[in-house]
Amino acid sequence: MIEINRELKISLYEQIYESIKRDILSGRLCTGEKLMSKRRLSEQLGVSLITVENAYAQLIAEGYVRSAEKSGYFVQYNGEIIPLSRLEGSICHESVTRFGGDTCIEGDSRLGGDFRLGGDSRLGGNSRLGEKGDEKKEIDAQNPTESAECFPFTVWARLMRSVLLEKGTALLQPVPNGGAEELCAAVSEYLYRVRGFYVPGKRIIIGSGTEYLYNLLIQLLGREHSYGTENPGYRKPAMIYRLNGVRCELISMDSCGMDVNALEKSGVSVAHISPAHHFPTGTVMPISRRREIMAWAKNGQEERFIIEDDYDSEFRWSGRPLPAMFGMEDGGRVIYVNTFSQTIAPSVRISYMCLPEGLYKRWQERMGFYSCSVPAFEQYTLARFISEGYFERHINRSKKRYRRIRELVLKLMESFGDSVTVNEENAGLHFTISTKNPEVTPKCALCGISVRPLHDYYGKDTAPADDENVCVVNYSNASEKQLMSIVNLQ
Amino acid sequence: MIEINRELKISLYEQIYESIKRDILSGRLCTGEKLMSKRRLSEQLGVSLITVENAYAQLIAEGYVRSAEKSGYFVQYNGEIIPLSRLEGSICHESVTRFGGDTCIEGDSRLGGDFRLGGDSRLGGNSRLGEKGDEKKEIDAQNPTESAECFPFTVWARLMRSVLLEKGTALLQPVPNGGAEELCAAVSEYLYRVRGFYVPGKRIIIGSGTEYLYNLLIQLLGREHSYGTENPGYRKPAMIYRLNGVRCELISMDSCGMDVNALEKSGVSVAHISPAHHFPTGTVMPISRRREIMAWAKNGQEERFIIEDDYDSEFRWSGRPLPAMFGMEDGGRVIYVNTFSQTIAPSVRISYMCLPEGLYKRWQERMGFYSCSVPAFEQYTLARFISEGYFERHINRSKKRYRRIRELVLKLMESFGDSVTVNEENAGLHFTISTKNPEVTPKCALCGISVRPLHDYYGKDTAPADDENVCVVNYSNASEKQLMSIVNLQ
Repeated sequence: MIEINRELKISLYEQIYESIKRDILSGRLCTGEKLMSKRRLSEQLGVSLITVENAYAQLIAEGYVRSAEKSGYFVQYNGEIIPLSRLEGSICHESVTRFGGDTCIEGDSRLGGDFRLGGDSRLGGNSRLGEKGDEKKEIDAQNPTESAECFPFTVWARLMRSVLLEKGTALLQPVPNGGAEELCAAVSEYLYRVRGFYVPGKRIIIGSGTEYLYNLLIQLLGREHSYGTENPGYRKPAMIYRLNGVRCELISMDSCGMDVNALEKSGVSVAHISPAHHFPTGTVMPISRRREIMAWAKNGQEERFIIEDDYDSEFRWSGRPLPAMFGMEDGGRVIYVNTFSQTIAPSVRISYMCLPEGLYKRWQERMGFYSCSVPAFEQYTLARFISEGYFERHINRSKKRYRRIRELVLKLMESFGDSVTVNEENAGLHFTISTKNPEVTPKCALCGISVRPLHDYYGKDTAPADDENVCVVNYSNASEKQLMSIVNLQ
Repeated sequence: MIEINRELKISLYEQIYESIKRDILSGRLCTGEKLMSKRRLSEQLGVSLITVENAYAQLIAEGYVRSAEKSGYFVQYNGEIIPLSRLEGSICHESVTRFGGDTCIEGDSRLGGDFRLGGDSRLGGNSRLGEKGDEKKEIDAQNPTESAECFPFTVWARLMRSVLLEKGTALLQPVPNGGAEELCAAVSEYLYRVRGFYVPGKRIIIGSGTEYLYNLLIQLLGREHSYGTENPGYRKPAMIYRLNGVRCELISMDSCGMDVNALEKSGVSVAHISPAHHFPTGTVMPISRRREIMAWAKNGQEERFIIEDDYDSEFRWSGRPLPAMFGMEDGGRVIYVNTFSQTIAPSVRISYMCLPEGLYKRWQERMGFYSCSVPAFEQYTLARFISEGYFERHINRSKKRYRRIRELVLKLMESFGDSVTVNEENAGLHFTISTKNPEVTPKCALCGISVRPLHDYYGKDTAPADDENVCVVNYSNASEKQLMSIVNLQ
């Protein structure tokens, strides 16, 4: 049933992926059905094995297909069956987008998951929320410069100088309240290229950090809303919602992400989720769960929204990134939030959110008086950094570096023998381990790797007892040099 | 009773001012008492007449003394009498501060009041809040570059380049959550030098714009608080409080500032005021009213606070600036808020607030997890701009320019003859007029001067009928060239 066309500009791997996905969504392929083996399909289509592997890996990553060891690949999809006529339109939209294939497909497909850069990682951030204010210092001090060394600072500095020279006193003029047009346009193109959805620049709101954007969102959506955040999870959003005096419930997770029954039961009207990659467990929300949460948002008596926190979707080890829910969705329920503070540098406070049409109108009416909080100079510099391709090149270089570090961290874990079990090694720059060995934490700390109990990421008194020995290992600040010297000594 | 000491580093004018102020506060000089004439005092002390004039002008500006035409200078003070023993300590603190004498005393003492620079003036800002979104464009377009030309952009650009060169990749490291230490220290020294109070750098919180800081303050003080803002007044704070779902009442003004009886009656617990210079009326809050509002804050059953919005205190035409309430106060009730977006450029989004000791502790506990929202690069650049003296030089140059513009604007008003009465010409970069002449607004618009009904600055249905013909004339965006050509044609 799969047809490929070598004259299209769409890669063969994407054509195969799209074709199988369409068959699943339209019900031609049903849950439990076995797919053709990779080798047979590659022979039948006359394409390389790696091409088929990439297509299958993408379908697995998105949750449409599961792999059963030694028995093959099986369809899994419990979502709504979509008539082909409707599907052509929507898939068509996705398939004409030119994903940054080189960026996304390269490398070892065993390394699934995402990662994040810089000293201000979610783990670092989270640890600051703890009872002890000292922890921040401790973690920041571990490795203050090594990840910054990856950043092409000379390019950034050159762009800054040229912006300074070319813009001159125009830098002193205020930018539009939503953000500088050049930056909004660059982000819009970037999202189209890499995240597979189109949003016009004017519906992209630039703000100084996601923390600020969460504050604005509470005001935009209206204070009658209540919020559900992931438990375990990144704790800052819940803290901000509660400081703002709106109801916030911690919603339990299962292996697919936020539990929809628990979400429904909680009575909240806004789900704050990170479907691309959950922190700290690394869960990637499969398509079926995404659709369930979309259905939850559309079916409520009251107005419901989804805040899609896409914080490090830039970093995929294998396959193309999962399509954002913002792009899938057609009911104006999803707000997409992402940041450059993590991928460029924590000292560059630039985040953004994409609003659906209806909320954008509400923004203009209700929030339009808020001045853009990011200096014009940074916005122009970042716009060039993205539109001249440096941002994507930087992401690629960082991925290579973290692939090396990951191997070293896994070797370090092996050195502890049976006392450490790695649970979730596909989760990106952090994974979980089960251990009772007291030597693990100090040894990791020597290399800039933080090890914290998973319990720390649960709301008070909500952590299950069987997670007691589970720890989150975060190597976003790891020192490659120190890791090498320690691993090679053994 | 006045003793001066030529060996002290404190200027003679300040010694005279301090001495009389002490006598008033301690009750040695009572309300209604007449001061020695300026000429006699200058002879008696052996100082120049201008020195005594400066001291008297300062006492008048602060509301301790009033001048009655042709009959002399009289004490007016209804505040608490403070024992000399307590006073020595507190005044001592103030009098050792080295105020930027050159900055503040220069020039024509008839030109009282304050002003503000740049395109994002309160008036410009306010007009954006109106019903028509188009107004912003219209006002911004009037004179997009002329006030920016005053800014020493080449210096700023040079500092940026040197920060880039010297800091290098250190620019990528996050700054402390309260703000970069260098900037906090520079602001602390600046406030000590120019605003006459000392606050340690760590209690200065840097944020990207006052709008953001107001959002944070609601969370810091606690959502049980309710807010009173000035009516008429700058409308953004009230809009932000209401969007955040906390109670906000518009409190009426009299000729001395916010009406304390109305404030007490409203039942709010936080007074948001601009004592240094009220927008749009230009009222400078006299010392007696300041003390009344301080007493209100201290005497409440519940916790009460004052938000001192000191937005353009940098610009005084005569005398030294009024001491900030933050510096006067000893009960930890005043939060000082100011911004550089107005004085440097609207595109540079850097504001700050100074917290009293108790609130600073609450900040650390409750809000310490918020990352600083201003990019490190801008913070380091501004720190140098201030500490190397460029900021104060820039203010001085701007004052000279606006003094010329002011003269031209007043000439333009004169050209309308009896149809325009200037009410408050000491109010700085804006003043009010009474007029029914329909030609005023379009003629002013030609020169980049905005003329808007005072009624626009009142809350809905609260404007008094007798203000009907009063307009606010704002020349912060005026074009000197266009003004000259129009005024000289007449």
